[in-house]
Amino acid sequence: MSPAAFVLRLTCANRPGIVAAASNLLYETGCNILDAQQFDDTQSDLFFSRIVFNRVGEGPDLAAIRTRFAPVGEHFAMTWSIDDLARRQRVLLLASTHDHCLADLLYRWRTGELAMDLAGIAANHPRETYRHLNFDDVPFHYLPVSRDSKPQQEAQIRALVRDGAVDLVVLARYMQILSDEFARELAGRCINIHHSFLPGFKGARPYHQAHARGVKVIGATAHYVTADLDEGPIIEQDVERVTHRDDPDDLARRGRDIERRVLARAVRAHLEHRIIVTGRRTIVFPE
Amino acid sequence: MSPAAFVLRLTCANRPGIVAAASNLLYETGCNILDAQQFDDTQSDLFFSRIVFNRVGEGPDLAAIRTRFAPVGEHFAMTWSIDDLARRQRVLLLASTHDHCLADLLYRWRTGELAMDLAGIAANHPRETYRHLNFDDVPFHYLPVSRDSKPQQEAQIRALVRDGAVDLVVLARYMQILSDEFARELAGRCINIHHSFLPGFKGARPYHQAHARGVKVIGATAHYVTADLDEGPIIEQDVERVTHRDDPDDLARRGRDIERRVLARAVRAHLEHRIIVTGRRTIVFPE
Amino acid sequence: MSPAAFVLRLTCANRPGIVAAASNLLYETGCNILDAQQFDDTQSDLFFSRIVFNRVGEGPDLAAIRTRFAPVGEHFAMTWSIDDLARRQRVLLLASTHDHCLADLLYRWRTGELAMDLAGIAANHPRETYRHLNFDDVPFHYLPVSRDSKPQQEAQIRALVRDGAVDLVVLARYMQILSDEFARELAGRCINIHHSFLPGFKGARPYHQAHARGVKVIGATAHYVTADLDEGPIIEQDVERVTHRDDPDDLARRGRDIERRVLARAVRAHLEHRIIVTGRRTIVFPE
Amino acid sequence: MSPAAFVLRLTCANRPGIVAAASNLLYETGCNILDAQQFDDTQSDLFFSRIVFNRVGEGPDLAAIRTRFAPVGEHFAMTWSIDDLARRQRVLLLASTHDHCLADLLYRWRTGELAMDLAGIAANHPRETYRHLNFDDVPFHYLPVSRDSKPQQEAQIRALVRDGAVDLVVLARYMQILSDEFARELAGRCINIHHSFLPGFKGARPYHQAHARGVKVIGATAHYVTADLDEGPIIEQDVERVTHRDDPDDLARRGRDIERRVLARAVRAHLEHRIIVTGRRTIVFPE
Repeated sequence: MSPAAFVLRLTCANRPGIVAAASNLLYETGCNILDAQQFDDTQSDLFFSRIVFNRVGEGPDLAAIRTRFAPVGEHFAMTWSIDDLARRQRVLLLASTHDHCLADLLYRWRTGELAMDLAGIAANHPRETYRHLNFDDVPFHYLPVSRDSKPQQEAQIRALVRDGAVDLVVLARYMQILSDEFARELAGRCINIHHSFLPGFKGARPYHQAHARGVKVIGATAHYVTADLDEGPIIEQDVERVTHRDDPDDLARRGRDIERRVLARAVRAHLEHRIIVTGRRTIVFPE
Repeated sequence: MSPAAFVLRLTCANRPGIVAAASNLLYETGCNILDAQQFDDTQSDLFFSRIVFNRVGEGPDLAAIRTRFAPVGEHFAMTWSIDDLARRQRVLLLASTHDHCLADLLYRWRTGELAMDLAGIAANHPRETYRHLNFDDVPFHYLPVSRDSKPQQEAQIRALVRDGAVDLVVLARYMQILSDEFARELAGRCINIHHSFLPGFKGARPYHQAHARGVKVIGATAHYVTADLDEGPIIEQDVERVTHRDDPDDLARRGRDIERRVLARAVRAHLEHRIIVTGRRTIVFPE
Repeated sequence: MSPAAFVLRLTCANRPGIVAAASNLLYETGCNILDAQQFDDTQSDLFFSRIVFNRVGEGPDLAAIRTRFAPVGEHFAMTWSIDDLARRQRVLLLASTHDHCLADLLYRWRTGELAMDLAGIAANHPRETYRHLNFDDVPFHYLPVSRDSKPQQEAQIRALVRDGAVDLVVLARYMQILSDEFARELAGRCINIHHSFLPGFKGARPYHQAHARGVKVIGATAHYVTADLDEGPIIEQDVERVTHRDDPDDLARRGRDIERRVLARAVRAHLEHRIIVTGRRTIVFPE
Repeated sequence: MSPAAFVLRLTCANRPGIVAAASNLLYETGCNILDAQQFDDTQSDLFFSRIVFNRVGEGPDLAAIRTRFAPVGEHFAMTWSIDDLARRQRVLLLASTHDHCLADLLYRWRTGELAMDLAGIAANHPRETYRHLNFDDVPFHYLPVSRDSKPQQEAQIRALVRDGAVDLVVLARYMQILSDEFARELAGRCINIHHSFLPGFKGARPYHQAHARGVKVIGATAHYVTADLDEGPIIEQDVERVTHRDDPDDLARRGRDIERRVLARAVRAHLEHRIIVTGRRTIVFPE
């Protein structure tokens, strides 16, 4: 993706002229559309669009583009945003015992596959737990948690989010439930990976549940965190076939491969501003 | 599959000597093992095996083999069966409005992909509903059903099963719930296709449920029918990716392709005596 | 899809203002954009777009829209077309021994999943070969072919295409190679299903080739027919896992399921004007 | 897998009594069969079996079991082996520029998912290239290679194999072609990952080839190395869907996820003695 590219995302009630108005405005502002995807949801009669554009020559800066776009947004009563793809978002990773998602995200961060800045890594286990993982200069925060200390520990995380100017929190198999209040505060900017193919097997020990039920396919689900546990808008899911020969440990092992790729895809979609949340659902525009 | 082949399936508590005893008996009886699969379930400590064999030259007939195997079965306290792969099972198909599974099963029956004899086709819609489908000489039974007539209609189906010497009943998107009693009577010989990836989206209108929940993958599940609706042992599942662009009708359309192949695979596994039910789960030996 | 909807497809060198010009023209013409997908191919610097729109109230007819769009097309040196989604294309199906794709296309035609008119079915085997298939009123043409009669037989097919005002020819496992001349004549409107995952296993008996090579996944490929055998632009592919237990007949059986769904998806994409051919590749806009 | 378990693999011409003889011998030797899979290849009339067993109480040791099994093997003219699952194989990893497979194998080695001992890591790039990867105490060998130094460099690798008592060599995107002689020397104990869905796109830059050909699915292939480049027996393959939007770099990125899981599965199958090579094909018994 060109470093000088911007992303316009918009949602509004469907009516004639939206695409024309938006593309005209961009054209007149000296911008060139590189990619555009629209989606007209006939169920809700809402219109969604994502437009990637860059400036032709000495075009206006992001603030100027936003200012010029505002009247169009107002005219159509849009919910809209324009983001600079070159600005790397600041991401906080939360981890727990299982570190396969953490290790995977770190690898993709290093190779540049996930274009983000790591604001920090926090875990309820000490640094020693992840001794084989190289964190470079990323600050690590050991935040142990017990039933009693949960509010205090969460306050520490909230401080990390606030003080670190964190754009996105990723629960990389963090396994701790956020408070309703914190979940609401992070609405649309906190991604969790659930180790089942939701809505099947909510709650604890999903691979044991899957084994007991005798399913022939297992999966994983990345979703935005909401106050309703395991009910947030789904961003990405994937699955693999299993057989009667797989015991719960085998399912967990196979599941790790699914979890890490599902979470990575969801984080990438978020970083590229390809997601619009609408009610309990997500629009995820293609890469 | 050779027409002269037999299938031994056995389940028993695991202990040394089972395979040796079974394979010895077959060898001494003048049989040759063509395929054998064992599975030792370390969770339950049960041992499962499926052995395909044929007779070398003028070997014993099925009754004689069963008689000779009985002491081995007794010695290990096995649940066991020996079936003749050449004997075509008699199958009753039940259908309703949506006939894609019915059409598919008929096609596979004609090409020999499903080696079965069709005892009949019964539906709660008249023959006219399926006018484009060629039933050949297979008897068709129009069995309309209303809230009041449900017991009588089910009695008619039971008569078809009994009088037709039916081995297997296939609910090819039949959409009617069997009574607990009938479900128990058909235990292990009635296969249903549910149009969702169970245990997600039990009950009615699963594609609408899936759309409302915003899942990114949909699926279908073939299972043995039990008195617990949508809770029977799962035989086969498959899935396909979907996107926000798919409305409930699109999901249903994509789902039809999944349903028909999942149901066909499950029926084929049953006809080839490749399934052993154990509790709520199935062992499905590979083709 | 709304019966009053139109599809604009366009290809041109990328430069600023294309989307604005096209969407403006449609807006000013009294049309409402329902769906729009753009794709900027950074490899070739070509811009591709598909826009679905309908008329607001008493809008212009198709001819008038085309007339009004022509200057825009000329200005950007576009290759463009506008089609009426409500006009059902006339399709000629060619079949041979294996009729699983033919049976499947007929089923989807009847249910309306494939919105097309069948101009005819032609085969190099007599009607008796397909006696179990219900062709309704679709004309059937028995066109036997031998090495010597090939040119004459192809001339008969060309006459069917011409006289039947055929928009699309589908080789539903037809297994006969078209002459270079005929292939060129049908460029972009003749779809073949090849029973392998191209470019692997071109030519004859691909399932035997796949077995000999010991692959662990098999597939099927739908592509536009060109004079270069098995080299035409790929529209759709899909695959399934196989094991060492699958002999060539098993692969062919599993493959039939893949072939029919891959071909059906490709035909549907064509009927919905979702494909643009560019060189040896296709742009297939999402459903 | 129980640490005291053994694996018998055998291949011979099919004839009656093989399973009985093998299972009897194990029973009489004081062993208990935990898992057994047979496969009768009707194409070649060869019989393949893999039997996992352990000792009941104070059973014989591996050498004694082998001695007792030898007459059975001779009687049926078997190719056979018995391995101790508890003995960890010594593995040499070879790497080059792209380290995603290397990083993945290291991770799985640490978590115990791949039960192997790492004899060493060798690369044609210096340690600095992999500075973010933690090699623990595994010896690293920088073996630069040029056109002229290729024979000498390969001699160094051969020395590592010999002196390190290496059981298995894994080419983790090593990208260097082994000499015919070395390939033959490592027959059946050297696994390569090819970044395409073989036999499509052999040779260099397969993702660029795939893009040029416009395929809709890409894949990766793990195979045993033979003197015929990209023609060795395939162990595992997997695929993912792609679209026209994916340029060669996108394909490479998506491909990395496929490559690492395909290679890991192949290495795991090898370590668990689940593979038998037969001609150009492999029998891979299920986990």
